[in-house]
Amino acid sequence: MRVVMAQMNVKAGNIEENFAFIKQTIEQAKLENAHMVVFPEMCVSGYLLQDKWLDDEFCQYVHSYNDKIRELSEDIGVVFGNLYYDSILGTNMGRDGRKSRFNAVLFAQDKKWVKKENSELSGIHIKHLNPDYRIFDDSRYFLSGIEVAMANNFEKHELVTPFLMNYEGSTVKVGLEVCEDLWSDDYSVKVSELYILQGVEFIVNVSSSPYTINKEKSRDKRINEHKLAMKEKMVPILYVNACGMQNTGKNFVVFDGGSCVFDANGDRVYSLNDAFAQEVSTYDFVSKVSIKSTSNKLLQALCCAIREVDEQMFKSSFKWIIGLSGGIDSSINACLLVMALGNERVIGYNMASNYNSSITKNNARLLADKLGIEIREGSIEALNKASIETMNDYQYKDEYGSLVYENIQARIRGHLLSTFASIEGGVIMNNANKVEVALGYCTLYGDCIGAISPIGDLTKVQCFEVARACNTYFKEEVISMTLIPEDKENEIIWGMPPSAELKEDQLDPMKWYYHDYLITYLTEYPTGRIEVFMDSYLDGSVYETPIGKWIAYYNLTNGEVFIKDLEWVLKTMYLAVFKRIQMPPVVMLSRGAFGSDYRESQLGFIQTDKYKVIRSKILEIK
Amino acid sequence: MRVVMAQMNVKAGNIEENFAFIKQTIEQAKLENAHMVVFPEMCVSGYLLQDKWLDDEFCQYVHSYNDKIRELSEDIGVVFGNLYYDSILGTNMGRDGRKSRFNAVLFAQDKKWVKKENSELSGIHIKHLNPDYRIFDDSRYFLSGIEVAMANNFEKHELVTPFLMNYEGSTVKVGLEVCEDLWSDDYSVKVSELYILQGVEFIVNVSSSPYTINKEKSRDKRINEHKLAMKEKMVPILYVNACGMQNTGKNFVVFDGGSCVFDANGDRVYSLNDAFAQEVSTYDFVSKVSIKSTSNKLLQALCCAIREVDEQMFKSSFKWIIGLSGGIDSSINACLLVMALGNERVIGYNMASNYNSSITKNNARLLADKLGIEIREGSIEALNKASIETMNDYQYKDEYGSLVYENIQARIRGHLLSTFASIEGGVIMNNANKVEVALGYCTLYGDCIGAISPIGDLTKVQCFEVARACNTYFKEEVISMTLIPEDKENEIIWGMPPSAELKEDQLDPMKWYYHDYLITYLTEYPTGRIEVFMDSYLDGSVYETPIGKWIAYYNLTNGEVFIKDLEWVLKTMYLAVFKRIQMPPVVMLSRGAFGSDYRESQLGFIQTDKYKVIRSKILEIK
Repeated sequence: MRVVMAQMNVKAGNIEENFAFIKQTIEQAKLENAHMVVFPEMCVSGYLLQDKWLDDEFCQYVHSYNDKIRELSEDIGVVFGNLYYDSILGTNMGRDGRKSRFNAVLFAQDKKWVKKENSELSGIHIKHLNPDYRIFDDSRYFLSGIEVAMANNFEKHELVTPFLMNYEGSTVKVGLEVCEDLWSDDYSVKVSELYILQGVEFIVNVSSSPYTINKEKSRDKRINEHKLAMKEKMVPILYVNACGMQNTGKNFVVFDGGSCVFDANGDRVYSLNDAFAQEVSTYDFVSKVSIKSTSNKLLQALCCAIREVDEQMFKSSFKWIIGLSGGIDSSINACLLVMALGNERVIGYNMASNYNSSITKNNARLLADKLGIEIREGSIEALNKASIETMNDYQYKDEYGSLVYENIQARIRGHLLSTFASIEGGVIMNNANKVEVALGYCTLYGDCIGAISPIGDLTKVQCFEVARACNTYFKEEVISMTLIPEDKENEIIWGMPPSAELKEDQLDPMKWYYHDYLITYLTEYPTGRIEVFMDSYLDGSVYETPIGKWIAYYNLTNGEVFIKDLEWVLKTMYLAVFKRIQMPPVVMLSRGAFGSDYRESQLGFIQTDKYKVIRSKILEIK
Repeated sequence: MRVVMAQMNVKAGNIEENFAFIKQTIEQAKLENAHMVVFPEMCVSGYLLQDKWLDDEFCQYVHSYNDKIRELSEDIGVVFGNLYYDSILGTNMGRDGRKSRFNAVLFAQDKKWVKKENSELSGIHIKHLNPDYRIFDDSRYFLSGIEVAMANNFEKHELVTPFLMNYEGSTVKVGLEVCEDLWSDDYSVKVSELYILQGVEFIVNVSSSPYTINKEKSRDKRINEHKLAMKEKMVPILYVNACGMQNTGKNFVVFDGGSCVFDANGDRVYSLNDAFAQEVSTYDFVSKVSIKSTSNKLLQALCCAIREVDEQMFKSSFKWIIGLSGGIDSSINACLLVMALGNERVIGYNMASNYNSSITKNNARLLADKLGIEIREGSIEALNKASIETMNDYQYKDEYGSLVYENIQARIRGHLLSTFASIEGGVIMNNANKVEVALGYCTLYGDCIGAISPIGDLTKVQCFEVARACNTYFKEEVISMTLIPEDKENEIIWGMPPSAELKEDQLDPMKWYYHDYLITYLTEYPTGRIEVFMDSYLDGSVYETPIGKWIAYYNLTNGEVFIKDLEWVLKTMYLAVFKRIQMPPVVMLSRGAFGSDYRESQLGFIQTDKYKVIRSKILEIK
């Protein structure tokens, strides 16, 4: 059997374009005499649409493509993920009375819906495992197969039955499932295993599964669990994932593709690219190809996000406006822009004050020269001066603290970049990293601005890696190595330590490596508990982990010093929620991106009793 | 029986303060020889905590208060809503393997958990109906009673059984439920009715039910439905709701209280205030009190939001910084600040350019004088000039369009307000209304800034009402009547039509009343469908609705003109998502506040086939 796997760049909301691709791919698959062609989850409309899913007419429209695609299935089996927006087994209301929507995989062959064993339903499997964590809100929008089974007083797994596909005259049993259905180890209904126990020849999983760092390991682990459970009964699994970018408002979410085939041994024997790029490839259950694995996957993810934002939101016709301070974060983003879009639509701006060193100014110019992007240089002093004058005008005399002046400088830069953008017809790049975002170490309406925050989900330490990868990519020292510290065993050697350069001799107050770790620990799903971390400090076990050396490095072995620093981090982090609410959308890369992934109310720093107990014990450590 | 109803101002995350109030109220209730005291849903921790619910140690800590409160129940029954964070009937995992959390009502008496009929569970009813719409994400955080029943292979309603309360030596059957359990008309499990059929004497509903305009009508309707279903079996229902404000990050959500008692006829016979204020009151099943009903409830909601933000986030110690243009929106917000906080901590700033008329400047000064707030006046021209100079410095000559200059002015004002705030230690008020927010008729980092958007969920037409109410409240024309149009039958008479005053003779491009309606229609839950609206235009039925006259008023009876305007609204609205992502939290007042209530991806304007068909038919209307 020949199966065309269509790793499709699904454009959220762009139904006509998605359908055109689907149609063309089906035609091509027929020319290749394929028996089946597979498209990802929600391939017609996109998956991350937020409350657009509550628009009945929109849903009706997306649903109408089910029949349009069925009509294209003459002489071929077409498997595709899409919305189903009609009654199923009499179930047409969610448990709260809203009309039901179903996230489903559909299967048409020879213009008919493929029949299922022991089921009056044809051509459809409803997603059974609806995730409601991280960026996922499936229960807000979709009713699960389990809920339909329950509403009909069936056993909760009873709707999982094989599809009966016609294969050159005989019938082949196939299992179809949607995304999370495969990741069932934590759920009570094991969709894949239910199919296997009913004798399917193979399983097809259609997914819109976002990329996060190291995600592929987690997926292979799931397959392994199924193999362990099913042993010699195991069957091949074809995993067809979307690629590209969709957004939740507060986050840009990238899809890596990485579609692949696992054989009955649970081994990956065939794979499409995992470089976030569209690919259509035919698998024939015999061929094995060496596994394609993208190097610098993180760079690819970042470039994918920028490229898709540029195309989807700005029709690839806007300039990109980036402030170039000469520091590491803006340097990385300039590199990413050039990698993703080339150098012609990127303009860098150096906006110097009297506090900016000639070294950083030179770094900015050198970077621009090496990347071949236009750079414009000027000073913010005229606006600084006018700001102070205007303050005087409002009867504020020059007697306020340094922070006021620092924020003035940052906001003037925000104002200038915005003005450049409106003159040029441009999009502003936000240069904050995750540690800055977490601690609110940035000025609202100043360096907090922009249309996209590519590295807002990367810690500073991860930025060092990305900076090195940029230099490797460009095969020269595009980003000055003085900006990247050397981590020599128990010492960090800085060429030039991070500084906002908003006053004389200013250095960032972060304890790099250590705070990076803490913030990751506190935000990544499942979220870390500060009490557990403190316990490991108290019993000394923290020193057996990689972070231990940084606790020693920063002289935090003294309990009082440790607590003082820790509470600065916690208070600062929770206070900064008010800034994050107004910050640009962040590209999700970790398992805890600020925004729709890690969601926050303004609550402040809450101390549990346990926290207080451990805290006082720690304070006794000398 | 005497029941103390504690309409509590639950402070999200402030567990110690909430517990202190609970403790004190229980003690007071004992002094009054009450038999029962009732606290709202999630009264220990607050309800809207977002992913703080995923912090295990926090949950453990909140759960630990269940026993602390049980210990206080000597000689009294204590009913309270709180998190339950332990295994229930063997269920300790959500369907995706995360440790279960339950949103529950608990009932302790004489230091013991109150037994239930036909149940081995004591002292607890798990919320059965978990809402997953609008601001609610219960499935993300909590497992429902229905899910626990199902996991135990019970019938889905089987866990709804009466509590057996000891009342002066005899046993009284009582039904307890949580918030949405009462609003069951759309759900398959009717919690209240299940209790009634099992012979309870009365039902207690503990709620954290947010205020939205006209919400009380909807609540009374639910009670009525139960009465109709239960007829003479109906029993009294005691509804104890929280008051105050909690937030979701993107929205400030106010709770009106409005706790009350419905008798067995379904009539409201007893009520606490619905003025968003804490109140403790004793009901004895005999007394009837005239129903308290707050006048100007909308004003109360707005003041509650401001007062609680001021107290919870800023410890009532910051100044409030507000730009006063002399227009209606900023005038309303200045009034609200003074109503909520008095006039001592409010500073108004008039930031004039050459385009600002002397009328609006005078309006601003008069308003400030009448409210008794400090006003500081100055000009933005120095910064305007420095901006242009700096542009020249960056080789941008004076040849760009008017919009660039308009945005420069707005951003300079944003910059100035931010600087005032950092000098004064102040909080900035955002002055946008919902029509502006919807259409993005505001400048990012300019007039889009602030810590709270009080009227960002009110249309301009609603703002006119609020402005009139402000004048009524202050008993004088605090807000100039020239800013409020007269709607005389088929004509709007403006004293001074709305203008941003960013260029000569500028007038806002909105079709007031008509666009207000459209935006409300498109955002309020359940969201309106543009195709349905267009259909009503096509068949003429729209002219039988209140909006019809505005279609005529704006000469939109011609199909081409109608479509041109409509598509401007739709395109502008969907494009403005990128601004809303970065705007301040909005006080939720409608059933579709931008933010956590009405959630948006950046998708652009999507046209269904049906849209296209109706559109072409409309275009033929001459």
